[in-house]
Amino acid sequence: MEKLKILVNYLKKRKKTIAVAESMSGGYLSYLLTKIPGSSKFFKLGVVAYSLQAKHKLFNIPYTILNPTQGVSEKIAKILSKKVKSMLGTDLGASIVGFAGPKAKKGMRGVVYLGLTKGIKTVTKRKKVSGSREEIRRKASYALIEFILNNLE
Amino acid sequence: MEKLKILVNYLKKRKKTIAVAESMSGGYLSYLLTKIPGSSKFFKLGVVAYSLQAKHKLFNIPYTILNPTQGVSEKIAKILSKKVKSMLGTDLGASIVGFAGPKAKKGMRGVVYLGLTKGIKTVTKRKKVSGSREEIRRKASYALIEFILNNLE
Repeated sequence: MEKLKILVNYLKKRKKTIAVAESMSGGYLSYLLTKIPGSSKFFKLGVVAYSLQAKHKLFNIPYTILNPTQGVSEKIAKILSKKVKSMLGTDLGASIVGFAGPKAKKGMRGVVYLGLTKGIKTVTKRKKVSGSREEIRRKASYALIEFILNNLE
Repeated sequence: MEKLKILVNYLKKRKKTIAVAESMSGGYLSYLLTKIPGSSKFFKLGVVAYSLQAKHKLFNIPYTILNPTQGVSEKIAKILSKKVKSMLGTDLGASIVGFAGPKAKKGMRGVVYLGLTKGIKTVTKRKKVSGSREEIRRKASYALIEFILNNLE
């Protein structure tokens, strides 16, 4: 929660706007970013691109890229981040994709890819978090908040 | 939570898919609908159209409709529900708009408009919920779940 407040204050103070695209976190990231009153000043759009179809149709990602990894890769995080930023022309775009559920392939459960676009530059990060499906969803969201903070300062 | 499980089981059993568009609930509705494992079977897309710009650009709602009510009206709930359904061609589309924050006009705080589209038919409902900003966001999300259930049976 502390890092969330720091990020929110940063965005408000510098009048920066953000849009996010998330998959396995299922809306939790958007929910966090809109938790503090006054969030409409900086949070403009969230897209919960939960299905491959959503990633394909709303973000123009071809199925040849989506299918081999079930929509979870560094490249896909990068595209989501870039494109969600361009949807409304916000200052920042950010994204999360990953595997939260028990059906993930061996060793892949808890693997998340984070994306952040600022101007024309996009940075990504692979991270592994642990816990229950619900904990993985939450930790991934907080990991993105931390990732944004680390890349803004 | 109980109603959420009933809805999830209903959608899974009947193989129905859903997409949602939400505003003041800020992603909480999508988060709820993806809380139970196996949610990818029915939950395809969530759009957190938090800004007027998001409602305008992604849903083609003219500013002449958005501006007078700050994006909160029965009509807007209806358009969001219909259009989010059409984005991926899901069986159902649903929406929430409302006033959660302390800056709402007198008597309007806690007012939410819910929308549900099934086939070519869209139903809407005005509801008033109470509590803190956070409680209003959560209650609005649960109200939509109940609204969907009542209109499916």
